Amino acid sequence: MKITAVIMAGGKGERFWPKSRESHPKQFLSLTDDGETMIQKTVSRISPLVQAEDIFIVTNACYKHLVIEQLPDIPQENVLAEPCGRNTAPCIAFATAVIKKKYGNAVMLVLPSDHLIKYENIYTRTLCNAIVTATEDNNLVTIGITPTYPETGYGYINFGEESGNAYKVERFVEKPDLRTAKKYLSSGKYLWNSGMFVWQVSAIEERFRTLMPEVFAGAEKIGQSFGTERFEKTLETEYNKFSSESVDFGIMEKSENIYTIPGSFGWDDVGNWLAIERINETDDNQNYIEGDVITENCRRTTICAGKRLISAIGIEDIIIVDTDDAVLVCSKNNTQDVKKIIARLRENNRTELI
Amino acid sequence: MKITAVIMAGGKGERFWPKSRESHPKQFLSLTDDGETMIQKTVSRISPLVQAEDIFIVTNACYKHLVIEQLPDIPQENVLAEPCGRNTAPCIAFATAVIKKKYGNAVMLVLPSDHLIKYENIYTRTLCNAIVTATEDNNLVTIGITPTYPETGYGYINFGEESGNAYKVERFVEKPDLRTAKKYLSSGKYLWNSGMFVWQVSAIEERFRTLMPEVFAGAEKIGQSFGTERFEKTLETEYNKFSSESVDFGIMEKSENIYTIPGSFGWDDVGNWLAIERINETDDNQNYIEGDVITENCRRTTICAGKRLISAIGIEDIIIVDTDDAVLVCSKNNTQDVKKIIARLRENNRTELI
Repeated sequence: MKITAVIMAGGKGERFWPKSRESHPKQFLSLTDDGETMIQKTVSRISPLVQAEDIFIVTNACYKHLVIEQLPDIPQENVLAEPCGRNTAPCIAFATAVIKKKYGNAVMLVLPSDHLIKYENIYTRTLCNAIVTATEDNNLVTIGITPTYPETGYGYINFGEESGNAYKVERFVEKPDLRTAKKYLSSGKYLWNSGMFVWQVSAIEERFRTLMPEVFAGAEKIGQSFGTERFEKTLETEYNKFSSESVDFGIMEKSENIYTIPGSFGWDDVGNWLAIERINETDDNQNYIEGDVITENCRRTTICAGKRLISAIGIEDIIIVDTDDAVLVCSKNNTQDVKKIIARLRENNRTELI
Repeated sequence: MKITAVIMAGGKGERFWPKSRESHPKQFLSLTDDGETMIQKTVSRISPLVQAEDIFIVTNACYKHLVIEQLPDIPQENVLAEPCGRNTAPCIAFATAVIKKKYGNAVMLVLPSDHLIKYENIYTRTLCNAIVTATEDNNLVTIGITPTYPETGYGYINFGEESGNAYKVERFVEKPDLRTAKKYLSSGKYLWNSGMFVWQVSAIEERFRTLMPEVFAGAEKIGQSFGTERFEKTLETEYNKFSSESVDFGIMEKSENIYTIPGSFGWDDVGNWLAIERINETDDNQNYIEGDVITENCRRTTICAGKRLISAIGIEDIIIVDTDDAVLVCSKNNTQDVKKIIARLRENNRTELI
């Protein structure tokens, strides 16, 4: 059976402003010193398992040109442009319908476009196990990340008995408070929900039919029109009818036969500027320095220069990012407030900076 | 007797980098929100006492165009361009010789070009008293600032008995340590040495003749050539022969009949970036904000935007300065280290940034 991949690349990602912009979100940025963008890494990471013509990128129409530019090896017809964002459930239903039209049944690896993985061989082996589990039956498989600390920013997967090379999922739980997160961590029965899924077209299609019939019906029409001159029109019409829903809430939390494979491959969701020092080398004073920077007596800073010199003196635990039209100087304790800056720019109609 | 002013504007002022550059030092910058430059303020401040054609600006040849541009009312022949910097003694001897050539004897107010004064009426009255004291006899008068805290960065003037509207200077003392500075402050017998002087041409000339004969001789030649075609040539030759010396060390500390007038007119030498919050209005969180800036949860910051937006989040006691080619982010505890950045730029021959 064909092994295909669906890479979800519709995110707007405000958390890396000012480097990320609405017109150029995180998945199209390079946040590591090797210059590769997040989505380029995502694609090259799965190349041991999936060939380029079987990789499908679902993104917003406004980002289609970036995908084509950054991923020249992916056939342009595989770049599936959403007319509007409707969260992950419609996105996956759309891709499923297209893959069904092309190949009938197939294995689908459904992956975010903006995460990092440190140990790619372990990642590949984990996906292999997931593929096996997904082909054994109409199972839905989610990759769970073995937690390394009590993170309160992720959802968790509570798993039960082992079955083959996977574990039965008991339930999905929302972002916990710290106390609960610590309980989860020590129990050894919880994994981070990474949003990576593996299943057959037939398996996920069946779930959509029963759990999200409108989305199923719309996606069917889109799939049937794929490759015809009706496609654009149908896509536009059907997509706008979809209501926003995540696949986690719409399908996973309501389905039977959900399995998880625990992965320990150095996963990082690169959630905000704090991630940069985690995913890159830092100097003796734990500073991460990029570009034309002079530091004097600085510690634990993250400094990304643009076209100009940045000189930093005597500062600690601060993030500095320079771009052509905006400079960010942010305490590491306040990275979540970058969104507030964007909100204020929006209030003042300074869209050129968003 | 004519009242003239000599404004010393030869300083390079590295401490306001990146806003100040070798080609555009502090005295030619506006560091207050009214947009007036330091030297423009210095000139308008003395206009109640001295008319424009009697104001002489001594500066380095490379800054002559800035003086002419910023002070159009000053006759261009009054802009005295030093071929090279030789500290204040040769600078004053040069100006003295020129004023002597023009007016014979006269009163000279000798003033730095890059200080701020808050209470200009008190300042004017203080200078008036100094003028009276200087004309009574061949006295040298220095304006002392009544100290308001135990500053260790200034030299002090120890004064003795009152005489007329001035006090006899006992001695000049170097920058003290904190303990000594506290003693000075509580004694009530010490003033800050502001580097502002008042005397007659005849009085300072006499001191140069006896205490710095080479400088006197060279300045004489320069003065005699002033207004002739020999001037440029003579100036070049004689000035290069001068050795660098401050008027404090070369004259004041060695002379008799030195008087001081205590001044309490809100003097600020605007020594480094820390001064900006002192000399400008700050907001409710004690931030000083200039230009296109968005702050979230910041306290006691000084932020000067250039052509770009600066957004600052969750930071305290930090100075941020943006220019076209360099950004400075500096802890308020490390403003003296701005010089280190310039030193490192010099090491790397990055003169375009200095």
